Amino acid sequence: MKRRPCPFVLLTSLVLAVQSMANAATPASQPAATNPKWEEVAPGVWKAAIGRPDDLTLFSAAGITPKVDALKQMPTAQFPLDQKQIEARQWGWKTAWRFPLGLDEDVYGLGVDFSSIRRTGTTFLLHVDHWGRVTGRTHAPVPLYISTKGYGVFFNTARYLKMNVGHGVRLAAEQKPPVIDRTTGKGWQSAPRSDSVEAIANTEGMEVFVFAGPTPMDAIRRYNLYCGGGALPPKWGLGFLVRTPTRYSADDALRDIKQFRENGIPLDMLGLEPGWHDHAYPCSFEWDKTRFPDPAAFLKEVEKLHVRVNLWFNPYVGPSSAPLYKKLLPYAGTHLVWNGIVPDYSIPEARKVFVDHLTEEVMKVNPNAIGGFKVDEVDGYDRYLWPDTAVFPSGRDGEQLRQTYGLLVQRAVYDIFKRADRRTMSQVRGTNGGAPQFPFVIYSDSYDFNEYVTAVVNSAFAGVLWSPEVRGGDGINMLRRTQAVCFSPLALYNGWASKEKLWTHEDVKDEIKDAIVLRLRLLPYFYNAFAQYHHQGTPIIRPMQLVEGFKEAGQQSEGKLDATANPYQQGKRSDTKDQYMFGDALLVAPIAPDQKSRRVVLPAGKWYDFFTGKLAGENEAIEVKPGLDEIPIFVKDGSLVPMIEAREWAPSKDENLVLEVRHYGEQPGKLALYDDDGETFAYEKGDYSWTQLTVEKDPDGGWQPRVTPDANGKTWRYSDVKWTFMTK
Amino acid sequence: MKRRPCPFVLLTSLVLAVQSMANAATPASQPAATNPKWEEVAPGVWKAAIGRPDDLTLFSAAGITPKVDALKQMPTAQFPLDQKQIEARQWGWKTAWRFPLGLDEDVYGLGVDFSSIRRTGTTFLLHVDHWGRVTGRTHAPVPLYISTKGYGVFFNTARYLKMNVGHGVRLAAEQKPPVIDRTTGKGWQSAPRSDSVEAIANTEGMEVFVFAGPTPMDAIRRYNLYCGGGALPPKWGLGFLVRTPTRYSADDALRDIKQFRENGIPLDMLGLEPGWHDHAYPCSFEWDKTRFPDPAAFLKEVEKLHVRVNLWFNPYVGPSSAPLYKKLLPYAGTHLVWNGIVPDYSIPEARKVFVDHLTEEVMKVNPNAIGGFKVDEVDGYDRYLWPDTAVFPSGRDGEQLRQTYGLLVQRAVYDIFKRADRRTMSQVRGTNGGAPQFPFVIYSDSYDFNEYVTAVVNSAFAGVLWSPEVRGGDGINMLRRTQAVCFSPLALYNGWASKEKLWTHEDVKDEIKDAIVLRLRLLPYFYNAFAQYHHQGTPIIRPMQLVEGFKEAGQQSEGKLDATANPYQQGKRSDTKDQYMFGDALLVAPIAPDQKSRRVVLPAGKWYDFFTGKLAGENEAIEVKPGLDEIPIFVKDGSLVPMIEAREWAPSKDENLVLEVRHYGEQPGKLALYDDDGETFAYEKGDYSWTQLTVEKDPDGGWQPRVTPDANGKTWRYSDVKWTFMTK
Repeated sequence: MKRRPCPFVLLTSLVLAVQSMANAATPASQPAATNPKWEEVAPGVWKAAIGRPDDLTLFSAAGITPKVDALKQMPTAQFPLDQKQIEARQWGWKTAWRFPLGLDEDVYGLGVDFSSIRRTGTTFLLHVDHWGRVTGRTHAPVPLYISTKGYGVFFNTARYLKMNVGHGVRLAAEQKPPVIDRTTGKGWQSAPRSDSVEAIANTEGMEVFVFAGPTPMDAIRRYNLYCGGGALPPKWGLGFLVRTPTRYSADDALRDIKQFRENGIPLDMLGLEPGWHDHAYPCSFEWDKTRFPDPAAFLKEVEKLHVRVNLWFNPYVGPSSAPLYKKLLPYAGTHLVWNGIVPDYSIPEARKVFVDHLTEEVMKVNPNAIGGFKVDEVDGYDRYLWPDTAVFPSGRDGEQLRQTYGLLVQRAVYDIFKRADRRTMSQVRGTNGGAPQFPFVIYSDSYDFNEYVTAVVNSAFAGVLWSPEVRGGDGINMLRRTQAVCFSPLALYNGWASKEKLWTHEDVKDEIKDAIVLRLRLLPYFYNAFAQYHHQGTPIIRPMQLVEGFKEAGQQSEGKLDATANPYQQGKRSDTKDQYMFGDALLVAPIAPDQKSRRVVLPAGKWYDFFTGKLAGENEAIEVKPGLDEIPIFVKDGSLVPMIEAREWAPSKDENLVLEVRHYGEQPGKLALYDDDGETFAYEKGDYSWTQLTVEKDPDGGWQPRVTPDANGKTWRYSDVKWTFMTK
Repeated sequence: MKRRPCPFVLLTSLVLAVQSMANAATPASQPAATNPKWEEVAPGVWKAAIGRPDDLTLFSAAGITPKVDALKQMPTAQFPLDQKQIEARQWGWKTAWRFPLGLDEDVYGLGVDFSSIRRTGTTFLLHVDHWGRVTGRTHAPVPLYISTKGYGVFFNTARYLKMNVGHGVRLAAEQKPPVIDRTTGKGWQSAPRSDSVEAIANTEGMEVFVFAGPTPMDAIRRYNLYCGGGALPPKWGLGFLVRTPTRYSADDALRDIKQFRENGIPLDMLGLEPGWHDHAYPCSFEWDKTRFPDPAAFLKEVEKLHVRVNLWFNPYVGPSSAPLYKKLLPYAGTHLVWNGIVPDYSIPEARKVFVDHLTEEVMKVNPNAIGGFKVDEVDGYDRYLWPDTAVFPSGRDGEQLRQTYGLLVQRAVYDIFKRADRRTMSQVRGTNGGAPQFPFVIYSDSYDFNEYVTAVVNSAFAGVLWSPEVRGGDGINMLRRTQAVCFSPLALYNGWASKEKLWTHEDVKDEIKDAIVLRLRLLPYFYNAFAQYHHQGTPIIRPMQLVEGFKEAGQQSEGKLDATANPYQQGKRSDTKDQYMFGDALLVAPIAPDQKSRRVVLPAGKWYDFFTGKLAGENEAIEVKPGLDEIPIFVKDGSLVPMIEAREWAPSKDENLVLEVRHYGEQPGKLALYDDDGETFAYEKGDYSWTQLTVEKDPDGGWQPRVTPDANGKTWRYSDVKWTFMTK
């Protein structure tokens, strides 16, 4: 057929041609698409808008402050796409965008999906919800996609967003897939690949951001930095967290902490579940006097034991007798959740009431013993939360609050800690775009090992932190899951409803302890990864697809026709989503409880076994059969891995430690190691340092290590540096 | 807390109170809810609207013509709800409705769900799609609900509709569930029951219909009659349909028909799959010259064998060389499906082009041998169809066309047959509200036995016809599924991609034949059920919940807490969804391939075994263990079941038959038996009859049967009536 330059030119001519024929009036006129004007709002970051965007967006809900100075440090970049290929349309209450997508281009991101990472060739609705399959409903439906061509696109809307990624071929597309007779033709496809990423929402306008590369990782960095840089938790936030059973009292909690100490298992945080409230589901936000008769005394004890508490809540306030209820009632939406009011936290005053209450009731009791909060139930399911018919005092509706509630509550909780100049490592079950700045780790009720490793990988494409959990089970389950969580953003055992303790299973007790001790020993390394996340925007988790020298092993399989199981003869493509880099040096390949051995894909260059320093392979897929005491970890040639001695809790801000730096492989090594006080926001005023660690070959072939202090650096808490050369 | 009369009064006062505090502007003002004005548009049918409804609605797409005369025959009724309790709100582009829902009230319908029938206590989005779990995405997301209190509500919108049924308690609700502390309280609920059914769509207005009872069945009747009455297929449409493999030629098809005759297995319809087109996916709508060199000769043979063909298509037209493509291109939407154009069939002229083409190319070749079409792929999945970003020449968008495409194509195809004054029994894979009039049976790729029996039950609440399929498998599978489909609206074996024939498995060959022969023998009974559907609106399938004297055996189970599997301690309630009434007399309990025995719940009154006439039980649950040759069927005391002699194809319009009337049980019996020519639309001009059959006790206790002809009746094709008294 005749090629046409643009679908919408075609369209409008058709409207003219056909309108008269159509007896039906046009419900909404169909304007031709426009090519929006792009304005560079920060180095390598462009913004465009069409129509009248809602005033509540993901970025405005999150309250972002771009890290412009850090963005200036990045390579200068041109607008990464052909602007004539970017089209937007706004008609009636619909706003649609089309971005070009090369036929050789793949797309990642668009939310923390649990089962896939590549988004090309499908369609889904981004909607905050529990879990996260390819429907687009997830704890973090972040409308950001990262292209293999090295750029990112973010749709800054608080509306449900329907995405079509490489799906839905346009009549006017210049490159259309071949028309093949399914009955007799070869190569017929059930979902022909389109040349577009299309997005649509019910809204009168939408703002979109484009993030330049040059690499996909650079695009993620720019997104994270534009959102204020990644979260920097306190050092103790990288220790171990245990969540205690719901009805635990102060005494129960203290007993548990002491048992950790007796067993020599590191512990930095203790999670109190709904029972700390005198009423939960809905929550009172008042200490329960029977279980916690003297919060101050309790928290004093906790502090003495070098632990901080993490307090669970869901933000639905009740009963009507609770002081906070009365204060928030004027801000309540039309519907209840678990019979509690749903405060409209898009209203700053409502957030202030909440922040004031928790500051007085909790934070001020003992700022040294309050580590964070667990913000539950801000995700879904629909059957638990308010309906879309709900409206709120701000005039906003159920959809807008559903998409932003997690952001708004994180923002409020984070303010509690900023006021007290104490950092936090908190948890949240629902979030969205604009969240990289928040030191909140997402969790879920999913307990499928593969799903939650896939989610760890996806979190990097969404600018969020996600952690799987250990929730009990038999020995091998507890062990393998513990090993996995120790190489995720937050290492925790969620014992809210299980009988097991980490020391219950004699057969794996020691290996569980070893995994957590190793996490503590690696604290300087993990902390450095978070420093890179905060100051440079580099995610702590690095999906293999972003790793230089990695070749995707995933293959597209031919679909086999089955009358009922596969009537469309769909093929499958498996992507590598069960291993990832944590920081610059370590390739982590979590091994599932039911696995005896597993396959690990090593990128180009030599890779070494973390524990032995021996060469593991290069640019190949290897099969590993780790013992119970090992999780497969591989180190890149020339890497420096900073560690400390084994300990049971994270160092305090005034401790000085001996740093052990391990060198792996044959190549010289170079590492900028970050440090600061690890507890306060002083780093925001420049109170930190980047110390240069290098290892070079000296003339006679030996290794020459060097420590170069940061000239302008303030804090450096390492009294001595020990070097270990792992590869003999 | 203080009671407030209405959530929206509360709301507006809050808006005033809080607006000033909110720094954010209100994106959409929040008007108070109104109580819409209800206008009685037909006896027992009321309509109300708010805002500016779209011009394309489900009813306008289906093109309904209410059967007002039949509605006048129904009991007069008052508006079934308290109008002050019905609230509607329209703001910005959102339209929301609230209907009261008693705490003792349950709701059925809202689409053909495959896994549940009761809708109370959940939330979902009604969206045309493949399959149909509780997400609301289904082949038939009909926005009609039927209340146990005896009324129905229909939301006449072609937009995706979010439903909250007994979910989402309002702050201003007068009866709120108790506030219970989950940690220590008893009876805490994960989803507290609300007093409302709430619906919302992105649209500037919406029309809603209310259908009076007094019974739930009456509400369904009124809906069906308002939509023009249920479909009345031709008599041969109640025979057996076999679908042949995709690449079958004319010779292959004729050979198959002859094999049915050789095996003595009844056959009335033969389905040709994509291979009849010279190009499919997208479709050319041209006979393939290699497989069908002489369509006229082929159809002549088919006619001689007393069979009609049913022709598969999906409505996406290509390739560009096809004559129909050129004619429809001006009506094409912006996006392609399988590289074929998507004609905007909301434009009458586009439908006419399609109808003209199929009339010339297919219907006129031999009107006696064209039985129907199989309208495929108008449902989903999203990944196969056009995106919501698509726009169409009428000015309508992807959402509107997605929700109505199945209706529009059914309307077009039905016109082909009306023009030719030939009835059809066709198939469609996606439909919506307004469809009762269409003689199209829905099908799916689901092959789960329980799912598809549940769908049969749900179809009655949605005013649609649904049939499971037999798609091959081992002997027991073929047999049990065949027995099930023979007691569904359409009895078919879909052999499009399977090797088995109905006679492949020697061990069950005879039983399969018996099941289909029984279907033919029951033709007068089945046809009568359809006549009731058309003339009185009574669905052919009657869910047990609508049957007088039925007590729901389903129990609410206490939820057991599990840290990961059931963290919210949700209970389950099992409803009876695996048995149903087909017509007035027969209770059908399909038995699954993997079942040796099953439970059947018998309502009050005596019930008799269909095959033996023996008493089976009354008002109780019985366990039945049918032999391979039996499907559990039970007959209500005093029922008359009209049958004919065994035969291999349905009678033609001029045949006269012997009627066998079976009487079951102890009670006198009464039956109005319908007849007409069974092939044309003459019945629309009154060319039909209702003959009264009665059985009464005579003074000496014997049975006295009587046949009272219809005084004004025209057609009656039974030469003689034989009576059989099954219960000795």
